[in-house]
Amino acid sequence: MELAYRERTREELRQELAAVRKRFEALKAKGLTLNMARGKPGKEQLDLVSGLLTALTDPEDCVSDGIDARNYGELSGLPAAKRLFAEILGCKPEECFIGGSASLQLMYDTISKAFTHGLLRSAQPWSRLERVKWLCPVPGYDRHFKITQSFGCEMIPVPMTPTGPDMDMVEELVRDPEVKGIWCVPKFSNPDGIVYSDETVRRLANLQPAAPDFLLMWDNAYCIHEFDSEFVPLADILTLCREAGNPDMVFEFASTSKITFPGAGVSVMAASVDNLKYMENLAGVQIISYDKVNQLRHVKFLRDRAHTMELMQKHAAIIRPKFRCVLRHLEEEIAPLGLAAWQRPKGGYFVSVNTLPGLAKRTLALCREAGVTMTDAGATFPYGVDPNDANIRIAPTLPPVEELEKAMEIFCVCLRLAALEQLIEE
Amino acid sequence: MELAYRERTREELRQELAAVRKRFEALKAKGLTLNMARGKPGKEQLDLVSGLLTALTDPEDCVSDGIDARNYGELSGLPAAKRLFAEILGCKPEECFIGGSASLQLMYDTISKAFTHGLLRSAQPWSRLERVKWLCPVPGYDRHFKITQSFGCEMIPVPMTPTGPDMDMVEELVRDPEVKGIWCVPKFSNPDGIVYSDETVRRLANLQPAAPDFLLMWDNAYCIHEFDSEFVPLADILTLCREAGNPDMVFEFASTSKITFPGAGVSVMAASVDNLKYMENLAGVQIISYDKVNQLRHVKFLRDRAHTMELMQKHAAIIRPKFRCVLRHLEEEIAPLGLAAWQRPKGGYFVSVNTLPGLAKRTLALCREAGVTMTDAGATFPYGVDPNDANIRIAPTLPPVEELEKAMEIFCVCLRLAALEQLIEE
Repeated sequence: MELAYRERTREELRQELAAVRKRFEALKAKGLTLNMARGKPGKEQLDLVSGLLTALTDPEDCVSDGIDARNYGELSGLPAAKRLFAEILGCKPEECFIGGSASLQLMYDTISKAFTHGLLRSAQPWSRLERVKWLCPVPGYDRHFKITQSFGCEMIPVPMTPTGPDMDMVEELVRDPEVKGIWCVPKFSNPDGIVYSDETVRRLANLQPAAPDFLLMWDNAYCIHEFDSEFVPLADILTLCREAGNPDMVFEFASTSKITFPGAGVSVMAASVDNLKYMENLAGVQIISYDKVNQLRHVKFLRDRAHTMELMQKHAAIIRPKFRCVLRHLEEEIAPLGLAAWQRPKGGYFVSVNTLPGLAKRTLALCREAGVTMTDAGATFPYGVDPNDANIRIAPTLPPVEELEKAMEIFCVCLRLAALEQLIEE
Repeated sequence: MELAYRERTREELRQELAAVRKRFEALKAKGLTLNMARGKPGKEQLDLVSGLLTALTDPEDCVSDGIDARNYGELSGLPAAKRLFAEILGCKPEECFIGGSASLQLMYDTISKAFTHGLLRSAQPWSRLERVKWLCPVPGYDRHFKITQSFGCEMIPVPMTPTGPDMDMVEELVRDPEVKGIWCVPKFSNPDGIVYSDETVRRLANLQPAAPDFLLMWDNAYCIHEFDSEFVPLADILTLCREAGNPDMVFEFASTSKITFPGAGVSVMAASVDNLKYMENLAGVQIISYDKVNQLRHVKFLRDRAHTMELMQKHAAIIRPKFRCVLRHLEEEIAPLGLAAWQRPKGGYFVSVNTLPGLAKRTLALCREAGVTMTDAGATFPYGVDPNDANIRIAPTLPPVEELEKAMEIFCVCLRLAALEQLIEE
């Protein structure tokens, strides 16, 4: 067993630096090009769902509940698609609005409309307010933060704990009427892979925000995305909010991007019937309906929750070895040295590594030098600034396992090198 | 030949009223339900393009220019889709941004982003301005007007002429810096079916608006939608604007909604490379890409401009008899009576009837009574208010010809009845 770096003498560290640097140069000399930057499914996963391509072949296939999916109409989506998503999410079909290929677009549009038109319970459009503050559990999803940044929100970081965002802090912060919302990935959070505890979910549903139009953005992106465990249940947030007297506070989002095709899936927004009525009134100006033929393709191919869960087992079988590879490298090469900590996620698309302070940027610069592209350091924080320069998001799903082995070897060497450089400089 | 109503005596009009009312009651008694409300293609047209459903069947089909259309990426769309649309529109592939199923969404989002973020040449987001004025050629497309209404624009009607919007008036109005844009459907305008003359197009490209971020919204919805004539060429507006020193003034829009499936087509936004760069920077926060698998389906199915034009000939063969039926009824039953005027469109999706003042609402109320649903009177004007109560939009593509015959019989009887009621009351 190797000794943790902080317990070694200066001379031992110097020897280690020389050895690790040599290993780094050797790896760099291989001239590899490896990518772990984004949560992209690999080709094997895409090939799993080829049946989607031929789910509809004839005009007669295109009719659902008497609606011709090919023609105009049905702003909120096909009833059959609402039933499918409601079953998956545990909400009601009438609480579902079916979107295009990207739930990101539904999220962006919700916040955009809050700024241009206001939400159901807004006194005025947010664009008229002097300041809009937004709670950002950190580390979090960079694309969420970019939306609120794009609209000029003042983003307030809230630390994540192993049970979800620090709820004492959230409850305190929402007493400020300028705080208008919070980003949440409640199950297998991006990037930590944390599942919010029942207590956290309950406290979120029972928030008493000063702003009447406070927006709980519930991005349930990984609702059925276990890769290494039994199904992990999560209470229906719409029901909890309704029971807490906050029926219109929450919008939930999900998609099939990591169930079928990332570039050609179907998304859903779930909210109270009153919220949907209000939002459909605005959305009806923007669109006649999202692609209903693709909605119907998904209904025919996925059928129902049980059949979709079977498909998710096949995805799990493909990506489980990739996550195990990442965790094995970290546990074997990094854990003994005391350089970083990480969760051991059972679902989702990421492993989040928290290094000792000040190592993330340098580690990723070294990785790049050796041909490994990762998510930029800082990306998991508002404005791209990680105050501790410590969080690194690893996205292991795209490369085949044999590439991942090489990439993780490089990553671990780079992290060791960055740590040694820092320790010796001190 | 019947005598025009205005040339008849009061007694003759009374006799005519009794006869027409009797005919109306007989038609009403049939209890029909006919719909000419929206520009929806009929089932026969949808069945024409069933090949789209099976254009991609295997994983290997999903790769285009080395890009796997199934996965994330390629914000602005597949290069092959850009090449197809550029060929159809007569612009360059790098001037194309490929959207989802609705060009309406691309239009809405362009204006929405003008309000939340500003355009390339805006000094500030439009939401910070006290007033935004917008030019609306009338009669025009109700969904256009609803977008600018939704964002609180002050809409200024500009009369359409047989060569396009009244350009003297447009040139005068754009000298006001609060006038930020204009809606245009340059070819087979909605609803008149007018093709802008070369002179009109040239004058629009050469506008000298006071607002540096004036927006020429060029909805080329019917760019290849001739149903009763040879192809009618229209100069490339992007080139003309560039030549006029206004490269960033125009955004052009089109889609396959009336080429393939209205509910599952592909849309395009064409603009200067600088404009697209600016807009993609904003759109990248909203979406990773629109549905690329559907883009590739369209590329494989439509192939190129020539092959797409062959398909449009088949559409034309289906809808031509429907338009001829509408025009025949109008010419035979209405023209001799001097009750209305209309264009004889050679493409597009509508026939626009301008009745004598004050007859539109009453005519449509009578139609509804007899079971025929049409676009609401006033819909073709900003705020839904037609100051003359005269414009009626007929959308003949959805019903089969035999239904259309009945619907047009009812329409003509209702228009006659409305005119007689008015004449006798005077």
